[in-house]
Amino acid sequence: MDRLQQQLNFIVEIDKLKSIIRKTRIADSTRHENSAEHSWQLALMALTLAEHANEPIDIMRVVKMVLVHDIVEIDAGDTFLFDEAGHEDKAEREQKAAERLFGLLPADIAQELRAIWDEFEARQTASSRFANALDRIAPLLLNYETKGGSWREYNISADRVLKRVAYIQDGSQTLWEYTQKLIASAVALGYLPKE
Amino acid sequence: MDRLQQQLNFIVEIDKLKSIIRKTRIADSTRHENSAEHSWQLALMALTLAEHANEPIDIMRVVKMVLVHDIVEIDAGDTFLFDEAGHEDKAEREQKAAERLFGLLPADIAQELRAIWDEFEARQTASSRFANALDRIAPLLLNYETKGGSWREYNISADRVLKRVAYIQDGSQTLWEYTQKLIASAVALGYLPKE
Repeated sequence: MDRLQQQLNFIVEIDKLKSIIRKTRIADSTRHENSAEHSWQLALMALTLAEHANEPIDIMRVVKMVLVHDIVEIDAGDTFLFDEAGHEDKAEREQKAAERLFGLLPADIAQELRAIWDEFEARQTASSRFANALDRIAPLLLNYETKGGSWREYNISADRVLKRVAYIQDGSQTLWEYTQKLIASAVALGYLPKE
Repeated sequence: MDRLQQQLNFIVEIDKLKSIIRKTRIADSTRHENSAEHSWQLALMALTLAEHANEPIDIMRVVKMVLVHDIVEIDAGDTFLFDEAGHEDKAEREQKAAERLFGLLPADIAQELRAIWDEFEARQTASSRFANALDRIAPLLLNYETKGGSWREYNISADRVLKRVAYIQDGSQTLWEYTQKLIASAVALGYLPKE
């Protein structure tokens, strides 16, 4: 099969990410968001919030990371941040998925995108720490906008939220300070129980 | 208002792109796609198809263009490629929308993203010609996958499609050749009437 056909098969295959439904609702609260549109929003966050990264970042790499970070969910499904059982075998399921999905591409491009996804997952570089911070803060913005959203739907407390999103501070101290204020405000407004 | 709050207000405002519904169906045909997830898919196309551009391109700029190209639809709506009346005042509606939406951002970022959107619209650079080629070929792939999709839904003929997507060739001769084969195959399979 020629390279172009392999590339286009990948593009059609990843269309399935539009049907992976997350727990978070879109800002007008009418429905849950999917992982494709979530990835788009993270890319716009990368472009507009880059100045708040703790360390110098490679912005192109951050954008690439957030664009590909959820593709594995096509096979592995979306694992809710507060689903502890689901997180036990998450890594294994996602490794298999990465193998198959990036493997649809010509080898050179597969390797490049796989390396970007691995970097995002490992959180060992400044760019990946910032990309992960964006991924953590995005649902908070939407839950706040929808007056509780998935926090309310799944009975999540402020304590649990703060614990699970604490690594925002590894990517951006500024976004971490904003997060703490947002959570405090959500508690004060009754969107989120304290404990 | 501080910079961070302006940036986050923009991010929440553009969440509305998830509710701008296009004529094209997603690949499994279950629903129409929205402009946010469409923009995500174009960004992945940019990352995986860059080698097929006619001229040397700035890939980061192509990715930025496709990520922002539809944001104006939040105010101006999606104009169907085959809606000739809608295209008469499209430019004017979209200019106003760009003014308001990018204007939510701090001035320096607003200017940068506005320049990227203007470049996409003008189709005067190699990068923008390639970005526009991707925007034109994406719905063809989905219409083919859905055995006719919006072609069938709106009684569009192969002649009209080819005429409206001809500028794919300005961005990529390879993708243009593929387009012609795809259209011929769609006609042969009965997905698309010839005239």
